[in-house]
Amino acid sequence: MVLFDDRTGVEVIERRECLELLSAEEIGRIAVLEGGQPLIVPVNYALDGDAIVFRTGPGSKLQASHGGPACFEIDGFELDRHAGWSVVVRGRLEAVLPTDSVTLDRVADMAHPWIGDRPDVVRLAPEIITGRRIRPA
Amino acid sequence: MVLFDDRTGVEVIERRECLELLSAEEIGRIAVLEGGQPLIVPVNYALDGDAIVFRTGPGSKLQASHGGPACFEIDGFELDRHAGWSVVVRGRLEAVLPTDSVTLDRVADMAHPWIGDRPDVVRLAPEIITGRRIRPA
Repeated sequence: MVLFDDRTGVEVIERRECLELLSAEEIGRIAVLEGGQPLIVPVNYALDGDAIVFRTGPGSKLQASHGGPACFEIDGFELDRHAGWSVVVRGRLEAVLPTDSVTLDRVADMAHPWIGDRPDVVRLAPEIITGRRIRPA
Repeated sequence: MVLFDDRTGVEVIERRECLELLSAEEIGRIAVLEGGQPLIVPVNYALDGDAIVFRTGPGSKLQASHGGPACFEIDGFELDRHAGWSVVVRGRLEAVLPTDSVTLDRVADMAHPWIGDRPDVVRLAPEIITGRRIRPA
């Protein structure tokens, strides 16, 4: 069954396929609040169950956002065909504590950042997962 | 001259090159606040001077965000080389009024959405434009 957003006519990607897409990608963008204003930061990430995990460093804007609301997004586009899709995960950022060895072991080989020393693991616990697709015309 | 972010070692993209990258791309992502939480939405956009303009429809989350803070982002990555760049524009969303025929004429051929009836033009007036690049290791 294919669902469409009533207002826009855009096809809805169901949760299971959203998770498949999240599992297949490596880079996404996370939006957090900084001084009450949204800020988008690209991150290397991994999917841990239905949560988004990534590494960050001390003092980063992402670490400063622990406990706060966040939105994560991945997408893919075919410019020449005017087609594409996006998946959005909304929830709250939480630190994976150094004492949470179960989670840390599980994500140890995941979400390697490309640069810098980023020892801290952050988790976006999903409250809402949505996906949208525009098929070629 | 190449600048580096002291904390992360990431190369800073200067404003002029940020605008060149913004001029070259067609799709970006905009983060707005919905109920105090960030929401990321992909958009077809165009660059008008140093402002981001795009179309949206009545009742959309983007239209509801007029006057509010927003963050726009574009990026490009080479997964196999662990390299990439991103440009972020922060500012406030404003409607381009139907009476602003000068701006509407200028953007008439720009920022065509791929789907749906999106008659309203929205503008992100930039307050901060920043860019970051990670070169291949």
